[in-house]
Amino acid sequence: MSLINQCKELKKASLILEMANTNVKNDALESVCKSLIKNQDFILKENQKDIQNAKRKNIKESLIDRLALTEDRIQGMIDGIRRIIDLKDPIWQSNKVWTLENNLTISKMTVPLGIIGIIYESRPNVTVDAFGLALKSGNGILLRGSSSAICSNKALVKAIKEGLRNSKIPEGVIELIEDTDRNVVKEMIRLNDYIDLVIPRGGKGLIDFVVQNATVPTIETGVGNCHIFVDESANQKNALKIIENAKTQRPGVCNAIETVLIHKQIAKEILPNLYQLLKDRVELRGCEITQEIIPVVPATEQDWQEEYLDYILAIKVVENLEQAIAHISKYGTKHSEAIVTENYSNAKTFQRRIDAAAVYVNASTRFTDGGEFGFGAEMGISTQKMLPRGPMGLEELVTIKYTIQGNGQIRE
Amino acid sequence: MSLINQCKELKKASLILEMANTNVKNDALESVCKSLIKNQDFILKENQKDIQNAKRKNIKESLIDRLALTEDRIQGMIDGIRRIIDLKDPIWQSNKVWTLENNLTISKMTVPLGIIGIIYESRPNVTVDAFGLALKSGNGILLRGSSSAICSNKALVKAIKEGLRNSKIPEGVIELIEDTDRNVVKEMIRLNDYIDLVIPRGGKGLIDFVVQNATVPTIETGVGNCHIFVDESANQKNALKIIENAKTQRPGVCNAIETVLIHKQIAKEILPNLYQLLKDRVELRGCEITQEIIPVVPATEQDWQEEYLDYILAIKVVENLEQAIAHISKYGTKHSEAIVTENYSNAKTFQRRIDAAAVYVNASTRFTDGGEFGFGAEMGISTQKMLPRGPMGLEELVTIKYTIQGNGQIRE
Repeated sequence: MSLINQCKELKKASLILEMANTNVKNDALESVCKSLIKNQDFILKENQKDIQNAKRKNIKESLIDRLALTEDRIQGMIDGIRRIIDLKDPIWQSNKVWTLENNLTISKMTVPLGIIGIIYESRPNVTVDAFGLALKSGNGILLRGSSSAICSNKALVKAIKEGLRNSKIPEGVIELIEDTDRNVVKEMIRLNDYIDLVIPRGGKGLIDFVVQNATVPTIETGVGNCHIFVDESANQKNALKIIENAKTQRPGVCNAIETVLIHKQIAKEILPNLYQLLKDRVELRGCEITQEIIPVVPATEQDWQEEYLDYILAIKVVENLEQAIAHISKYGTKHSEAIVTENYSNAKTFQRRIDAAAVYVNASTRFTDGGEFGFGAEMGISTQKMLPRGPMGLEELVTIKYTIQGNGQIRE
Repeated sequence: MSLINQCKELKKASLILEMANTNVKNDALESVCKSLIKNQDFILKENQKDIQNAKRKNIKESLIDRLALTEDRIQGMIDGIRRIIDLKDPIWQSNKVWTLENNLTISKMTVPLGIIGIIYESRPNVTVDAFGLALKSGNGILLRGSSSAICSNKALVKAIKEGLRNSKIPEGVIELIEDTDRNVVKEMIRLNDYIDLVIPRGGKGLIDFVVQNATVPTIETGVGNCHIFVDESANQKNALKIIENAKTQRPGVCNAIETVLIHKQIAKEILPNLYQLLKDRVELRGCEITQEIIPVVPATEQDWQEEYLDYILAIKVVENLEQAIAHISKYGTKHSEAIVTENYSNAKTFQRRIDAAAVYVNASTRFTDGGEFGFGAEMGISTQKMLPRGPMGLEELVTIKYTIQGNGQIRE
């Protein structure tokens, strides 16, 4: 089917989805779970084709691992949909209803966005997660996965559509773009008549390409050059524990830290302990002052800018809070930033002045996540200034409509 | 000053503005009021230059009237700022604070967007309104007015900056682009490093140009092809009153109606009354059935599409609610739509199914306005799907930041 025809299909189907009540949507999601179980062997077989292709292209092992599906991973997808079934329907809710002096009552109601486009790389579980979140929030979804996962994605979407055919939700609410040419992305992100929002999930190259070329509204996601500033007054035991967690618990994700900033008054005390804690697992790169205290690779300007996504940590000693804020303002990507301090005023100043989606006092940046925040699931993490900002759960996939009840009011 | 230097100035100043407390912002606004009074003669003199230029170019009288300033209109601007002073500060507020099982407390706090760009046509009062709203919401503002109002806008911005110099807010929070070449707009809407949001306020041509060319996030505003559907069960007296109000109270604005849809069962009864009510003031254009009942200009396909912004009204007789919804879905611009009905289910269906920023039952569409909604003022009316949608008051000019308070939490 051509992209335009897929969009027409989506539009028709999403008008039905928008009006569906929660039970109908939940039944459809449950039917999809059953279909995923039924089609498990087929999905695994198709996934093997992607893996064989990747091996032929000598793609590195960690990427092949991201691509690979197993019975457990399919069960994980199903568990994810069941969690979405349990979440509160975000549609036609309001926390703002008011009545004017003339007796007009205005309700600010949540409604679906319409059709969401998502462009994503390798991991096929995103196909199922994104579908589940979109359906529950009443949105049609147009998927553009990476060419490396095309067989897996086709199989998953086939199973999802089969599940929908046993429900009251039309299968047209999900469409996968099978053409893996990049020009299709360019076409997709300019279809303002059909697509209400495009979410690019992937590396900086993809995100920049989308922002530069899209006319459809987009949400920038995920690039995270995150910092922890250890203030003079910090509980150093906590600081070490938080740094270790934020760097090593899962270094390949966007809310892991890349640089630690240390107040100069405590540098000599804490750096040797940090070195002992991480030296066997993490490559440390330090500024000149750091180099005088512990054995590190000399850090360059490039290190302050980089999102390593790896077992590498940059360390910089700063004069004070002001210099820490200045460093983060210059190099940060507005994702997640943390201060470790016992100083009340510094904690407050840091949280007011740092411009990021999530700003922590005395906790690991790794909590910036829809699941951890209690949203149940997430479509990605928005790092842009405009709303939605931060982890995007169901409530971030809606827009609003004002409904106004009158009895003949006119404007004087 | 070059555009980039203006942006640098804005960025520096807006960082100070972001941290200013409400009293400091209100004092600055009051200081600007005083400066506008003090500079009144200068502003009126500069405005005369724009008017003389417009007359030389034979610009039509209604546009010259929009451009013209008087003592009263300047007082109106000052009153507008004083209303903004009285409004609640929208920054660092929250209606969502929660604590996780691990005792992390997450607060979803409102924060300024940063720098807002606005591109607008003729009316110089927008210069002052937009500045007032931006300052109170903690945002710097970059203004690009029309060339026809350039002398007035320069004078107003000069007076505003003079007022700011007597306050604790730096004058760099407002910058006016004086270059009236359209290429500057193209440059402005791609300055992602400096501008967080661009709002085009003007005709469809301007808005389309911005949407097609911007890389900065934009908000589509204002185009309103609005409808009223008079259902079979309508209180016809109310219907006539509402139609009259929505068409004639101020036809040149976006929330005025352009087309009335009449249920066929009541067409013969209501149309003659509608004709009597409007015939001397409004040109009526009707569908074939309408033409059989009252003397009207035959309506063409073009009439259903057009935003007249004038004393012209298109009339179409429809079979039923379904056809009314289909017509509005096809031709509406998602601004404001109304049904007049006494049928409960039809009212409910109309409000659920019509996709627009504001959907009315038994009231005039003219209420879609920040002032009428009780927002105190507005930066424009967003007709896009993504938030903010509808009238944009202070609360729509902010974004959010999650602040997280911990005592050593790490992710397991």
